[in-house]
Amino acid sequence: MKLIDDLNWRYATKKFSKKKVSNEDLEQLLEAINLSASSIGMQTYRVFVIDNPALKKELGEGSFNSQIAESSHLLVFAAFTSIDQKIIDNYIQFVATERGTPIAELNDFKNMVSSYLLARTDTENFIWSTKQAYIGLGTGLIAAASLKIDTTPMEGFDAEKFDNLLGLKEKNLSSVVVLALGYRDEEKDWNAKLKKVRIPVDEFATHLN
Amino acid sequence: MKLIDDLNWRYATKKFSKKKVSNEDLEQLLEAINLSASSIGMQTYRVFVIDNPALKKELGEGSFNSQIAESSHLLVFAAFTSIDQKIIDNYIQFVATERGTPIAELNDFKNMVSSYLLARTDTENFIWSTKQAYIGLGTGLIAAASLKIDTTPMEGFDAEKFDNLLGLKEKNLSSVVVLALGYRDEEKDWNAKLKKVRIPVDEFATHLN
Repeated sequence: MKLIDDLNWRYATKKFSKKKVSNEDLEQLLEAINLSASSIGMQTYRVFVIDNPALKKELGEGSFNSQIAESSHLLVFAAFTSIDQKIIDNYIQFVATERGTPIAELNDFKNMVSSYLLARTDTENFIWSTKQAYIGLGTGLIAAASLKIDTTPMEGFDAEKFDNLLGLKEKNLSSVVVLALGYRDEEKDWNAKLKKVRIPVDEFATHLN
Repeated sequence: MKLIDDLNWRYATKKFSKKKVSNEDLEQLLEAINLSASSIGMQTYRVFVIDNPALKKELGEGSFNSQIAESSHLLVFAAFTSIDQKIIDNYIQFVATERGTPIAELNDFKNMVSSYLLARTDTENFIWSTKQAYIGLGTGLIAAASLKIDTTPMEGFDAEKFDNLLGLKEKNLSSVVVLALGYRDEEKDWNAKLKKVRIPVDEFATHLN
C-alpha cells in the first residue's frame, strides 16, 4: 500500500533546504487536515500557517529546533482553551445548516454534547481538544509525505511565546504542537540516512482471541 | 490526491455488516499504525486487536456504541501509564542495536530524554503518551480508508472496564481510544448517507504572512 511507502519515506527532518512548498500543495495539505476525524465532529482546534521569515525566526529563538526558523512553512496546531454553550450551539446550528436538518431534530444530540462537555473543566476539554489536534497532525504527516514534502513534528517550543506572538489567547486558542514543512537538505541532515527505528509489529500490537 | 478521496470516503460508521476484515488487510493496517511518528520516537502506546465475539460483546455492554460488539475487529489503543528510567534505557538500547550505534554515543540523547520525561508526573506522561496514540489513530483511520475498511473511532467506552478485561494495568497501560473496524451496512446505517460536515478550510486554517 502506498501509505506504507509514504510512512517509511518520512522522518523527522533536522535540516531543510531553501526550497519552498507551493501554494497548491499547501492547500491540499490543509484540506486533508481539515477532513480529519474529530470527536463529535466538532474540530475544536485550528491551524496557523506561517510563511513570514521574520516571524518564523522570532518563534524559533531560544528553541533547540532550528527547523522552526528554517522551514518553508510552519503549521501551528492550536486547541480551544475552553468550550461553552455558545460554541456548542454554533456547531449544532452549522450541522443543521450544512445538512438541511431542522434544528429541533438535533435537540437530543445538542443536549448529549452539552452535558458531556460542560460537565468537564476547561483543562479537561483543552486536553481533549489537543488529542483531536493530534489526529490532524497524523493526517498532516501523511498528506505531506504523499506530496513528498518533508516534515518535522515538534513539541519542543515555547507555547506561551507562540500564543502571544500569534495572538491566540484572545481567540480562545493555545498552541499544542507544531509541524515544520519543507524539503530535506540530504547532505546536511544527519537524520536523513539513519534507519527508521520501530518496535516489531507483533510487539506493538497484540491479538487477543 | 488519493488521500483526500479516502478522507472524504470515510465517516463514523454506526452500523457494520457481518463481513470480516481479512488478516492480510489487518496486518497492513497495524504496520501502518506502527510506522506513525511519535514524540522522541518512543511509541509509548500499544494496540490490542480483538476479534473474539464474546469479548467484544462484554466490552460493549453498557456503552451507547453498539459498534464495539458489532465490529469485525476492535482496536484498543492503550497508553503507558508511567515512564521510568528502565523504559528509557531499554528504548536507547533498542535504538543503538537497530542502528548499530555505540551506546556511549547516545548518552547525551539519553540524558536529554530522561531529564525531559522524568521531571514530569505520571499523569503528564500518560497524557503525552495518549497524544502519541492519537497520531496512530489518525494513521489507522487513513490506512483503513485506503483499504476500503470502515471505521468508528470512539472515546465513549468504559476505560476502567476495558483495562480490567484486557489485563492492561499490569502491563503499565490504560486504554485511551478505540477504533472499530468492519464494513458499513449501507441500508441500516443512518450516518452513511449524511453529508460530511467540515468548517470551510479558510476558517479552519489561517495564513499569517
